[in-house]
Amino acid sequence: MRGAAQLHSGGARRGGRRPDARRPRQGEDPGRDAIRPDLPPEGPGGRRNQRVRTRRPDRADHRRDAAPAQSPSAGAAGGVRTPGGRGGASAREELPRQGEIDARLGARVRRLRDVGEHAWIARFVRDLSSQRRGARIVVGPGDDAAVVRPGRRALLLTTDTLIENVHFRAGWVSPAALGRRAFRVSVSDLAAMGGGPTFALLAIEAPPRLAVGHLDALVRGFRAAAGASGAALVGGNLTAGSHLAITVALLGEAPGRIVTRAGGRAGDALYVTGTIGGAGLAVRRLRAGRRGRLPDPPLRLRAGRELAPFAHAMIDVSDGLVQDVGHLCRASGVAAELEAASLPLALGCRRALGEAAPTFAATAGEDYELVVAVPPRREHLAARLSPRLGCRLSRVGRLVAGRPGVRLRDAAGRVLALPRDGFDHFA
Amino acid sequence: MRGAAQLHSGGARRGGRRPDARRPRQGEDPGRDAIRPDLPPEGPGGRRNQRVRTRRPDRADHRRDAAPAQSPSAGAAGGVRTPGGRGGASAREELPRQGEIDARLGARVRRLRDVGEHAWIARFVRDLSSQRRGARIVVGPGDDAAVVRPGRRALLLTTDTLIENVHFRAGWVSPAALGRRAFRVSVSDLAAMGGGPTFALLAIEAPPRLAVGHLDALVRGFRAAAGASGAALVGGNLTAGSHLAITVALLGEAPGRIVTRAGGRAGDALYVTGTIGGAGLAVRRLRAGRRGRLPDPPLRLRAGRELAPFAHAMIDVSDGLVQDVGHLCRASGVAAELEAASLPLALGCRRALGEAAPTFAATAGEDYELVVAVPPRREHLAARLSPRLGCRLSRVGRLVAGRPGVRLRDAAGRVLALPRDGFDHFA
Repeated sequence: MRGAAQLHSGGARRGGRRPDARRPRQGEDPGRDAIRPDLPPEGPGGRRNQRVRTRRPDRADHRRDAAPAQSPSAGAAGGVRTPGGRGGASAREELPRQGEIDARLGARVRRLRDVGEHAWIARFVRDLSSQRRGARIVVGPGDDAAVVRPGRRALLLTTDTLIENVHFRAGWVSPAALGRRAFRVSVSDLAAMGGGPTFALLAIEAPPRLAVGHLDALVRGFRAAAGASGAALVGGNLTAGSHLAITVALLGEAPGRIVTRAGGRAGDALYVTGTIGGAGLAVRRLRAGRRGRLPDPPLRLRAGRELAPFAHAMIDVSDGLVQDVGHLCRASGVAAELEAASLPLALGCRRALGEAAPTFAATAGEDYELVVAVPPRREHLAARLSPRLGCRLSRVGRLVAGRPGVRLRDAAGRVLALPRDGFDHFA
Repeated sequence: MRGAAQLHSGGARRGGRRPDARRPRQGEDPGRDAIRPDLPPEGPGGRRNQRVRTRRPDRADHRRDAAPAQSPSAGAAGGVRTPGGRGGASAREELPRQGEIDARLGARVRRLRDVGEHAWIARFVRDLSSQRRGARIVVGPGDDAAVVRPGRRALLLTTDTLIENVHFRAGWVSPAALGRRAFRVSVSDLAAMGGGPTFALLAIEAPPRLAVGHLDALVRGFRAAAGASGAALVGGNLTAGSHLAITVALLGEAPGRIVTRAGGRAGDALYVTGTIGGAGLAVRRLRAGRRGRLPDPPLRLRAGRELAPFAHAMIDVSDGLVQDVGHLCRASGVAAELEAASLPLALGCRRALGEAAPTFAATAGEDYELVVAVPPRREHLAARLSPRLGCRLSRVGRLVAGRPGVRLRDAAGRVLALPRDGFDHFA
């Protein structure tokens, strides 16, 4: 244990099972989901000692994921609704822009530095301990390490990080939506292998000025998203830092075949789930100081699972279609031809950018859709599967022999110049 | 995949197995192990394109850990020697203090912003791919997620974070030692359950100004430490941030009984492995701008494994003995009495602080030793085991009935006032 800051530290045996641990917690307000950076967050003075009372269905499977109709459990699991790939963020619970909250609500807000690391963790662990333990969780949060019983399948492992001012800014997204986002961004990697999550670890770096209520909401959003995907949060870590950073590690399993990004072959058709360009446009707007709403990353677990049996290769689109298809090409040793006219553009992106929409959407990133390489003899299956995926499935191009690389062509077959391949943290 | 920055992204199939991938890499200089913050780091200009060529014994078990005599494999595994709980850091490879390196070596240093995220990852993944894959690693670094085959035992999961200016400062520790430290700090949690690591994920937040050579050395240090403990680095993530932060997630297994912190009972004797106070003293000196050397966290895997079969409870000491015993007490519902005269003080701590040494050592933190609660009828076994542990084992007090809490008493039985319980990130 470092910093005694493990979410799985302290109070496991005696601290758990408080008599009031199952009292239903206050609901959120999923209806007011527009991000309004200019609105001050509600002072959580009235929410003191608000505890996480999340219940999680204990041995949920991966099957409740994409469709809104299937996610009442998400509401039951933590009161945070995750309406099918779109953020249910309440303006009330936005992350504070520093200074703003200090000026307006300073005295009323309980911050991490007021509560202290160990008190927050002890309280949180107590609340996590109130969840029923399935046969697969031997030791849950509250010790040096969690102990879980995996199934007999191979395990999938992945980790991802969201950093303030890199992946989001204060005011762009509510704490609960940020927690959901952290989970979904990571889970996208498992979907792209044809698998789903089983256990999650959550390591948080938080500034001492952070309101405790926001941290609570963040973790609650994470847990609800995990629970709705059949995964349990079994441990974590909390440490002080200059900004907010969230690192997720996921364990998962695949019910069937595991698909890598390296199996693509010349001749395969390339399909994309959902739409692209919407999240990138929102980021661009928000960066420019305009109003916007960063959509929740879509949950493509079902699509990944259904497409895996006959896909040659899959990858998720996080840094832009061109760049991520490029990764697939390099891993597979092939090139790709994409057709601009076939890209499934988000409606807002097409409206806002017109002719520039395809090149923008192909390089903007933040989509978290899946790209799937399907061999020609299986293409009829892709079409047949489509209604079962919970999202669109669009044929956007194909893999061809040649030096790894990606070309985007217009309707006349001309190669379009791209402003960039996609997002690079350092370049 | 977020930010396409996964260490397990890109180039798995085609990129691996470069013809030169097994050429022995340049050695380090484990002899010069004093940290000298005033010394400028060597410009890595001559090390351009230096690749990670670490070989890792493929199916190593947990048995090579603590004793220096047993760690030639650590050298073979990555050229980084880990001499029994003490840092083999070379002054040549110190982390740069910003400004210093800019002023002196600016033009010669390749930084992350010069190389770019994807180029660094592609190179690193290629090098990782050159390691032999055991039957337990199905898909290693180079895809959306790693795929591993766990054994049939329950899994241990833990995560920890080291943050620049919180857990270390530039110049305190070499990049390789920082990588080792990140691994060992996390693995300490598994040792405290009686287990050992099998697979590791490494998520790095790095400033664009960071020299690529330093990042390479950090990851190399991590891999070597993991390899020497029988674990494989199977994935990770790289993202830009304002400072360096390292988040580790470990999977592990326990060969036998898993010990929590919640099983302690009144009457149990409390034992501590190794010595305490040495690391805390080093931190104090370094913070004051004096010369010092932050010791490597000790590796107590063997001690944990040997002690687990008859321990009622275990915890690792990261935030100070008093605080961590306090966690054990709260989890177990008992109190603890510690004897100041029995604490196994690090020699340097006793010399530097004299009479103040026990209270300092009991609250300083950074020790990563184990505290073990042993029932009275098993105490003779602890004494008999001692030679096999690879470290001292000292009886420091006992658990008693009462409200959870920890008292430190002097030889006359008086309760000593403590400056603090230990480290809290936010308090």
